[in-house]
Amino acid sequence: MSKSINIFGFHGIESVLNSSPELVIRVLIQKGRKDKRIIDLTDTLNSYKILYSISDKNNLDKISKGEIHQGVISEVMTPPVLGEDSFFHSITMFDQKPMILILDSIQDPRNLGACLRSANAAGVSHVVINKDGSAPINSLVHKTSAGAINSLQIFHVTNLSRTIKQIKERNIWVVGLDGNTQSSIYNVNLTSSIAIVVGSEGKGIRPLIKKNCDQLVCIPMSGNIESLNVSVATAISLFEIKRQRESS
Amino acid sequence: MSKSINIFGFHGIESVLNSSPELVIRVLIQKGRKDKRIIDLTDTLNSYKILYSISDKNNLDKISKGEIHQGVISEVMTPPVLGEDSFFHSITMFDQKPMILILDSIQDPRNLGACLRSANAAGVSHVVINKDGSAPINSLVHKTSAGAINSLQIFHVTNLSRTIKQIKERNIWVVGLDGNTQSSIYNVNLTSSIAIVVGSEGKGIRPLIKKNCDQLVCIPMSGNIESLNVSVATAISLFEIKRQRESS
Repeated sequence: MSKSINIFGFHGIESVLNSSPELVIRVLIQKGRKDKRIIDLTDTLNSYKILYSISDKNNLDKISKGEIHQGVISEVMTPPVLGEDSFFHSITMFDQKPMILILDSIQDPRNLGACLRSANAAGVSHVVINKDGSAPINSLVHKTSAGAINSLQIFHVTNLSRTIKQIKERNIWVVGLDGNTQSSIYNVNLTSSIAIVVGSEGKGIRPLIKKNCDQLVCIPMSGNIESLNVSVATAISLFEIKRQRESS
Repeated sequence: MSKSINIFGFHGIESVLNSSPELVIRVLIQKGRKDKRIIDLTDTLNSYKILYSISDKNNLDKISKGEIHQGVISEVMTPPVLGEDSFFHSITMFDQKPMILILDSIQDPRNLGACLRSANAAGVSHVVINKDGSAPINSLVHKTSAGAINSLQIFHVTNLSRTIKQIKERNIWVVGLDGNTQSSIYNVNLTSSIAIVVGSEGKGIRPLIKKNCDQLVCIPMSGNIESLNVSVATAISLFEIKRQRESS
């Protein structure tokens, strides 16, 4: 089911207008703003016949509750987050080698958004998230994803272990990212149909999910810090898949 | 010159105690806390003969000004940030192929900290930051670096263009990361002595700095978002250098 969220500032609304203008419900613009960026924005809104209204700064401040809004608050529909059936239907219909990102219990909305931003940039075809135990797709996820959530196919599932088993039955290789394993991601052939599983920062992939992966890999690290940030580890892995696919 | 910062919560102080306990000045612990993590912490503090005192929650709340402190606030020295002379001295004495990260005007402390965390994990030997126009090394940088700032050699320089020219004179190849160029980072041999330059999110590397690079490269992207997060782009580049070096 779709719902709407408020996004604050120019960057968010500009990225939605670029990718999915049909998702914009309405825009609130601060009274007295007449700079070029506002004029460009209202021109674009007019061209798409999107409603906007003018309101004073106090009202915008009240709505944004401390978020920086730059004089622009936009109400947009979040793209529909689909379920397990839709996911397998989409996989069946997909005529290329899927690159699936499975996010296990990412609770920090900034990390979730950052993972989605990199997923879009790396060419991920499907994102699977466990519904319970993950951050909901909210304004902060939208913002940190740099609008990528509008262009990704995102699926919420209730039983991630079961979904992973069914993914494997479709001859998709399921690789889990695990800092405690010895096998380097760089020694694995990632050019076939693939799903990569990433767990939450601190805890990693849950044990039962880990057990269901075909293979566990690590990103070899130097230095003395314990781990990479989860969104960084996700990006390195996804771009390694992309690199291998494009050089093969 | 070294200065001190407050770091909040367990993770920050635990990482400093692991890498550089000599940097800890004193620790404040919330009255009444007697759980295992606190006991482990006070045991470690005792073993290093580091002073700690007990204070009530109100006082900790007051000091942390809204930051989550988990009942622990630690005052630590930030590692000394050295200057240009120290940098070139260190490069001259360095007996391996340097991997230098040059950060041009990263103003967001979260991004700066995240870049430093990945730099440590990728085995960066030296970090060069332009002093004016970059975020200072503060509590938030410490936190998002996951303590990596304690283990990195970080140098602040006043004239980044001049420093880059002098780096090039030492036969170190200077590669700038630029989303607007066509050359893929994956087509460049990164196995020799190398410095990689990263600019701020949104603006990228400043024009004069860009002009001084030996070569500009991009991380090829799919999807429709405009750019990668700067700390993600930094991590992908650094781990590509590490991958190439280790496979060569």
